[in-house]
Amino acid sequence: MIRIRSLLPLILVLLLAFSPVRHTDDLLGFSQEAAKEQRKLEAAYQQHLNPENLRTWMKKMSEHPHHVGSKFTGEKVRYMADLFASWGYEVEVEEFTVLFPTPTSRLVEMVAPTTFKASLEEPGIDGDTSARSREDMLPPYNAFSADGDVTGELVYVNQGIPRDYEELKKRGISVEGKIVIARYGGSWRGIKPKVAAEHGAIACILYSDPRDDGYVRGDVYPEGPFRNADGVQRGSVSDMPLYPGDPLTPGVGSKPDTERYERDESPTLMKIPVLPISYKDAQPLLEALGGPVVPGSWKGGLPITYHIGPGPATVRVKLEFDWKLETAYNVVAKMLGNEFPDQWIMRGNHHDAWVYGAADPISGMVALMEEARAIAELTKTGWRPKRTLVYAGWDAEEPGLLGSTEWVEYHREELQDKLALYINTDGNGRGFLRMGGSHTLEKFINEVARDVNDPQTNVSVSDRLRALGKVRGSEDAKNRRDIRLYPLGSGSDYTPFLQHAGIASLNLGFGGENAGGAYHSAYDTFEHYTRFGDPEFAYGVTLANVAGRAVLRFANADILPFSMASYVDNVKMYAKEVMALAGQMRSQTENENELITSKAYELAADPTQIYIVPELEEAVPYFNFAPLQNALNKLEKSAKHYDMLVASRGMALSRGEKEQVNELLIALEQTMTRTQGLPRRPWFKHQIYAPGFYTGYGVKTLPGIREALEQRSWDEVTEQIQIVSKTLEKVSEHIDNASAEIQ
Amino acid sequence: MIRIRSLLPLILVLLLAFSPVRHTDDLLGFSQEAAKEQRKLEAAYQQHLNPENLRTWMKKMSEHPHHVGSKFTGEKVRYMADLFASWGYEVEVEEFTVLFPTPTSRLVEMVAPTTFKASLEEPGIDGDTSARSREDMLPPYNAFSADGDVTGELVYVNQGIPRDYEELKKRGISVEGKIVIARYGGSWRGIKPKVAAEHGAIACILYSDPRDDGYVRGDVYPEGPFRNADGVQRGSVSDMPLYPGDPLTPGVGSKPDTERYERDESPTLMKIPVLPISYKDAQPLLEALGGPVVPGSWKGGLPITYHIGPGPATVRVKLEFDWKLETAYNVVAKMLGNEFPDQWIMRGNHHDAWVYGAADPISGMVALMEEARAIAELTKTGWRPKRTLVYAGWDAEEPGLLGSTEWVEYHREELQDKLALYINTDGNGRGFLRMGGSHTLEKFINEVARDVNDPQTNVSVSDRLRALGKVRGSEDAKNRRDIRLYPLGSGSDYTPFLQHAGIASLNLGFGGENAGGAYHSAYDTFEHYTRFGDPEFAYGVTLANVAGRAVLRFANADILPFSMASYVDNVKMYAKEVMALAGQMRSQTENENELITSKAYELAADPTQIYIVPELEEAVPYFNFAPLQNALNKLEKSAKHYDMLVASRGMALSRGEKEQVNELLIALEQTMTRTQGLPRRPWFKHQIYAPGFYTGYGVKTLPGIREALEQRSWDEVTEQIQIVSKTLEKVSEHIDNASAEIQ
Repeated sequence: MIRIRSLLPLILVLLLAFSPVRHTDDLLGFSQEAAKEQRKLEAAYQQHLNPENLRTWMKKMSEHPHHVGSKFTGEKVRYMADLFASWGYEVEVEEFTVLFPTPTSRLVEMVAPTTFKASLEEPGIDGDTSARSREDMLPPYNAFSADGDVTGELVYVNQGIPRDYEELKKRGISVEGKIVIARYGGSWRGIKPKVAAEHGAIACILYSDPRDDGYVRGDVYPEGPFRNADGVQRGSVSDMPLYPGDPLTPGVGSKPDTERYERDESPTLMKIPVLPISYKDAQPLLEALGGPVVPGSWKGGLPITYHIGPGPATVRVKLEFDWKLETAYNVVAKMLGNEFPDQWIMRGNHHDAWVYGAADPISGMVALMEEARAIAELTKTGWRPKRTLVYAGWDAEEPGLLGSTEWVEYHREELQDKLALYINTDGNGRGFLRMGGSHTLEKFINEVARDVNDPQTNVSVSDRLRALGKVRGSEDAKNRRDIRLYPLGSGSDYTPFLQHAGIASLNLGFGGENAGGAYHSAYDTFEHYTRFGDPEFAYGVTLANVAGRAVLRFANADILPFSMASYVDNVKMYAKEVMALAGQMRSQTENENELITSKAYELAADPTQIYIVPELEEAVPYFNFAPLQNALNKLEKSAKHYDMLVASRGMALSRGEKEQVNELLIALEQTMTRTQGLPRRPWFKHQIYAPGFYTGYGVKTLPGIREALEQRSWDEVTEQIQIVSKTLEKVSEHIDNASAEIQ
Repeated sequence: MIRIRSLLPLILVLLLAFSPVRHTDDLLGFSQEAAKEQRKLEAAYQQHLNPENLRTWMKKMSEHPHHVGSKFTGEKVRYMADLFASWGYEVEVEEFTVLFPTPTSRLVEMVAPTTFKASLEEPGIDGDTSARSREDMLPPYNAFSADGDVTGELVYVNQGIPRDYEELKKRGISVEGKIVIARYGGSWRGIKPKVAAEHGAIACILYSDPRDDGYVRGDVYPEGPFRNADGVQRGSVSDMPLYPGDPLTPGVGSKPDTERYERDESPTLMKIPVLPISYKDAQPLLEALGGPVVPGSWKGGLPITYHIGPGPATVRVKLEFDWKLETAYNVVAKMLGNEFPDQWIMRGNHHDAWVYGAADPISGMVALMEEARAIAELTKTGWRPKRTLVYAGWDAEEPGLLGSTEWVEYHREELQDKLALYINTDGNGRGFLRMGGSHTLEKFINEVARDVNDPQTNVSVSDRLRALGKVRGSEDAKNRRDIRLYPLGSGSDYTPFLQHAGIASLNLGFGGENAGGAYHSAYDTFEHYTRFGDPEFAYGVTLANVAGRAVLRFANADILPFSMASYVDNVKMYAKEVMALAGQMRSQTENENELITSKAYELAADPTQIYIVPELEEAVPYFNFAPLQNALNKLEKSAKHYDMLVASRGMALSRGEKEQVNELLIALEQTMTRTQGLPRRPWFKHQIYAPGFYTGYGVKTLPGIREALEQRSWDEVTEQIQIVSKTLEKVSEHIDNASAEIQ
């Protein structure tokens, strides 16, 4: 049973990718006859996919730095727009005016107990784009950091997330007036300086520890794919969990004349200076720290004993930025539907990068382009989609989803009226399909995933993903027909669609076999990607295959293929989770308080070390979850009824009746939102999914209830149970209305 | 609630350690009146303990290298013997003749792809004993390694335990004809070359990885206590799980004229060359390895990407030893009991070290000596123990429990007749009491632990240990009156007593707050210990307090303080564990086999990497555990009955009746043994506790059944269930006999 495979030659890849898959099932939303036609269409579509296009376009588009406002952006945008136009799309390049600070001065130096000046540079590597095109390259920095020139003792705060500060407190260590250094990981980067500032820190240094992102993980670039000693992770630190997009224009599209905040009015701009550095630059700083040795889980992979400080390492951080407004260029290409032109199916991927961005975002962008091209090929035989297709390349995603957010804010009403589905992609890799999104789409996208072959194994991408789940011990992978969609937090351009506008959304991509450490560095290059990412672009065309079939299927369905049962199943699971969380927190609090009052903590501590016993916590009350349970019960009934009606009578409806149903379905996700949004962050409207206030990208499901619990706001928990229950009742009613159209 | 404490001054330590503890309980084995007297005696005993003696003796005894056969051994042994004699003990220095190879040639060098010669030395550190006394110092080596001169490609095998070879197999990597390098940890060191040799390796290099034992854990010596880049862990690699003691004389005491194996007949001598090296020496070797990157859990703390190999690193290992016989000197000091001189209570600690051995073993040895001295002080008022006390200092423990094993083998019949209790100690530290041993002693030693104060916190050492348990989430710590004894595997001199001769045994020591990395290196010095071990010897005298009270209590008890309920409670727990293990293995095997047959493993693997699907495993049958359950049921009844009888009527018995009971109690642990021993290792007689055949020091409870399961020998499982059940029936009958004497 020995299987030894080297990288498969391209021809074999293509054979496998395009070999037929047995279909035994009907298609959701199609009559049997229509399903047959649809599968023929999709087979024809698949034949047009060509990985060499992806390679050509990536090489071109990642040739030079192409962040928002870069010199190369114009050429790149024209290149994309021209291609879309050449395939027959109506192309518009829509401009927004957004705040985009770039650094004019960056300094990190240790002034005591020894002196050291951080290099803050990523040198070019021979034979790599990073050596060939250095003009206009943005140096490592965090967008939306504050200006500042501060000097202070250094404190290592691990990942800089709230529980790390609890550990510091137990050791009697405060960061008030200090500069903190945090390793990347454990949350979205913007959380780290935000929490540091809340605790009184005057600056924040971020670095990539080799344990998480460097030689501990594997060989470093250029020998291997992982982050080398010079590599730095750039990225935004605006307070995106409050709202993404232009920090000066929340909720509205930022055209040149849009009224905007003054900078000091914007609540999402970081309050303290923040800068990312390499582990080469971090090591001397960390090595110079004294104070207690860090807890076990805080240890990184540098060859030093990690200490917390504060000091004796004393560091100066000096940062100045050019706080200019830049133009973001969104490329939007439309193919009008021939039956329902005012019902849209949309695809999007950002096109801006921090530097060359071969993987992030170009690998996803070129898959989207090939998808658009191959669909356009179908029109050469006279075929047209029933609904309108919209392909978008977003600018300014990297500084905080600016291009997509401003566009959605600007077009929100039209989108809420017309857009049935938004499918997002971003950087793509090799391995396993990752599917996240609205759970009304779970059954639909699972059907698609069963119809697409994995290029390496000759089974469907669904079967391969299931195999991974089984190996990882997932009960769902063993027993559940559909693979669960992961719920969406944030971190890419689906956020304004799903969480602000209430558009049913998916996020798709491949990964798991292309681990590396080029993320947001100057080493995310064509050379890196074609050695370690998806060298044959086999998964690039497979992504186009999955997403393109999804687009074609949604565009042509008689009744839009939403499934209510999948939705209810997942929301019930989230409800169970929050109820269980309350119970866990209750017994954990009881236990902790007992350990405090019985002096167990005190007696178990080493008396030669500083140890501050935590304060007693307020007991967790029992909450009335009955409204939530009742709402879910009602929702389940509505969902079953709708699914049953569609299956039994849906195809027999007249065209007009189907349209009534479809209109209601397009509006369904909006019933899961609330105009007032979530507590303290009204921009986020969705009541089922949100990025965590203290995790950033990480999702919180039923966020109103869950975060009230986590923040121990007991009254708010009760209030949010009511709000979420009302929301779910609204969803039930909406589903009932759709059912009424079928009956 | 802020508590900030620096190291407490000695006077405060003593005040705390010797302040009174409230007693509310009777003492097991004593009448109420006698318990009162006994506690008075113990209070007087405690008053005599003086930490300064420990300091003086440690300074003297750790002044020079003092391994078995060293130049300093004679002086050290006379020093100890003279002290015991000066306190009024009858002292005998009993000699055994044991095999003790020392290296005459050591070479580890890389010959390709670059060259590097390992230093294999531990340089002296200024101000440290390691710089002052280098004559006669044993260099780093593994005792009982084979001679050899081999060259081969290197393979990194992680910890070199069986499951690591399963990982290698999945990657298609064999160590046949190769040299393996393994990090310390995960098992006793001798397992690593044993398993390597079983897989065809031609030599084995051991090293201390900084992740486990170096800068990752904390600051290194001399800045801090942890292992520095030069530090090496010496140690024996004889096959101790087969039998400890002199490899040439299993089962018999090795006097000069004892018949012994030729070297090539001994089954416990290692078959391949083995050498321990420092992480400074290991780094260039590991860095030169190619092949796949190691799995996550295999990664160490060196600043490199760990690869498995094989090669291109090619290494030569050349080792030669002087295979001489040496004399081991056991110091045995007796104080005759005035009522039952033929009933013995014994204490032991080894006195030989790998180099200076301040912590290991002198910190424990000096606590034992102070205990003996303080007890001798009591005799100045005319008091004598009722039973005979025997204090032993063992030689040659480090190469494999040679001194104690030969002594027990030589005196076995007398010990089985007379020895009621053996209490072992070894290196001692700071923090929490660790109590292991025969579970018939659990209630007894818990009573002692409740009567001794922790020197740092002014609560009993029992309460402090319980606090730690509670903080760690132990349900027992919350709910169980007595703190569980950990079962004894191996690693110190209790093994021949408990597991070969069937003597009820305890192992005691303090630790948990003296983490460091001097173990078996030249940096285990007086300076290291008095900075980072137990600087005030506060825990040294506390150990003397605990062990001395235990000795005095056992020596004076009316009825020997064994408790049957504690024993049954623990053995039932072990039985539940092995039954659960069978169930876990059954479902795990089913699951694994399903992942193989459904091709989930194959499909989840990255096709660009070598991956060999594991072979199907034989299903785990259901076993007839009924004999074990029935035996336990009977045992529980017998135990309850005995405990009830002793509590209600024990003290009313006549002196002669008590003696009948005590004679039976002395023999009780022997009923848990079996003359034939365990499968494939007849030296190990005990049926409840044994060191693991593939863990070395790590204990296996109900070893016959448990290891048959783990080795998937289904027939042997059934056979061993019968054997263990019969053994437990024998224990029941013996307890019933004791009960009959009381009724």
